[in-house]
Amino acid sequence: MSGSLVIAGLGPGGVALITPEVQRALDEATDIVGYIPYVARVADRQGLTKHASDNRVELDRSRHALEMAAEGRRVVVVSSGDPGVFAMASAVFEAVEAGPRDWRDLDIRVLPGITAMLAAAARVGAPLGHDFCAINLSDNLKPWEVIETRLRLAVEADFACAFYNPRSRARPEAFGRVLEVLGEICEAERLIVFARAVSTPEEAIRVVPLAEAQPDMADMRTVVIVGSSATRLIPREGAPWVYTPRSVPS
Amino acid sequence: MSGSLVIAGLGPGGVALITPEVQRALDEATDIVGYIPYVARVADRQGLTKHASDNRVELDRSRHALEMAAEGRRVVVVSSGDPGVFAMASAVFEAVEAGPRDWRDLDIRVLPGITAMLAAAARVGAPLGHDFCAINLSDNLKPWEVIETRLRLAVEADFACAFYNPRSRARPEAFGRVLEVLGEICEAERLIVFARAVSTPEEAIRVVPLAEAQPDMADMRTVVIVGSSATRLIPREGAPWVYTPRSVPS
Repeated sequence: MSGSLVIAGLGPGGVALITPEVQRALDEATDIVGYIPYVARVADRQGLTKHASDNRVELDRSRHALEMAAEGRRVVVVSSGDPGVFAMASAVFEAVEAGPRDWRDLDIRVLPGITAMLAAAARVGAPLGHDFCAINLSDNLKPWEVIETRLRLAVEADFACAFYNPRSRARPEAFGRVLEVLGEICEAERLIVFARAVSTPEEAIRVVPLAEAQPDMADMRTVVIVGSSATRLIPREGAPWVYTPRSVPS
Repeated sequence: MSGSLVIAGLGPGGVALITPEVQRALDEATDIVGYIPYVARVADRQGLTKHASDNRVELDRSRHALEMAAEGRRVVVVSSGDPGVFAMASAVFEAVEAGPRDWRDLDIRVLPGITAMLAAAARVGAPLGHDFCAINLSDNLKPWEVIETRLRLAVEADFACAFYNPRSRARPEAFGRVLEVLGEICEAERLIVFARAVSTPEEAIRVVPLAEAQPDMADMRTVVIVGSSATRLIPREGAPWVYTPRSVPS
């Protein structure tokens, strides 16, 4: 049997958010490759080999997966959320482009998943209901200046913004600087959603105006959504709804 | 039994892309509400009433769904893709905010789905693998000037861009103007992905450089992805891969 490489999105955590397409790929795999906590989400079974690796070795992991597929194995690279959003799909294609020419002829498929910002948005209402952007705040892979420029242009465009990887031990100060920049260019009432570990037992959601947002409200399991200037809060018993209207007045 | 309102995303079309969470809500519903072609995707069964309505009546549809939930029915409002991305969730919360106070206490849940841009991105590789934005090109609900301003700022920020609703019979010229603006501010080689009806039998994907993009390559079932300046093409036998690298050089 010829090999294959599937790059699959496991969604944000809950099993009810894994698509049947992804579940089938997992069921048919001979090898699962990925970051330790994501590989751990795939059930053990006879005939399945798991290859878990640490963070920040995405290219090595991709090459390993491609090599195994080239040897005839049915390999699934797992990502949390959607593999095409700040996850493994880009790393695999970087490896394909730089690798042996025959890797381009491999049977490679990307299977989408529920990405964190959409799971988070659904929990609080519809904050991404109009034009929006997604920015990776990790500055491992790009200079801080690029992040700040994009942030300012995104606010000028009046996009709602979803921030991935807002905060890590390696750069605890970066998200504080993001909040400072937002404080300069947005009104104090701008709505901020902190959504941690959505659809898992550790899920925690918090909605605050920008003036009350603090850096330690986010960690690496949090996606942060900043509303546009039009984003509205509907107060009620329990957690409020947050949504962005569909229309922009003339 | 007390009523409930679920706003559910059916994904882009293929049944293997409907999450188990959404499938369960459909299975438990008494009433399905939505735009005609989306309601048609839900199988008929005894005890299920379908309420299909035409496009552009989103607020009326939302109020009807909320009224039925308030009467004790288990109502599911269906959207294609993800309900929070240019779909029904915002319309429902607009109706909640403007409606009777007790609608705020209803059991309302939004269930995410695979949105068109992520299904399209997966088909061609990982064009949204770094920072990106999503813009609704429909100018039914906002002035053209807002669209053009956002487009220019998004390109200045060097986001990859996903365009929803690029073209309709009511405004066939708008997408041509988008391509003109892109032609002014982007290099001729900028990669454009036209992804029509992904995961359905009518799926059609086309990847061209900006210089070859034509307005009639898009219709209302197409999502258009414009790469960032860093987006790359990997030529091979068959359709090329398109991806955006994870890192921005210093």
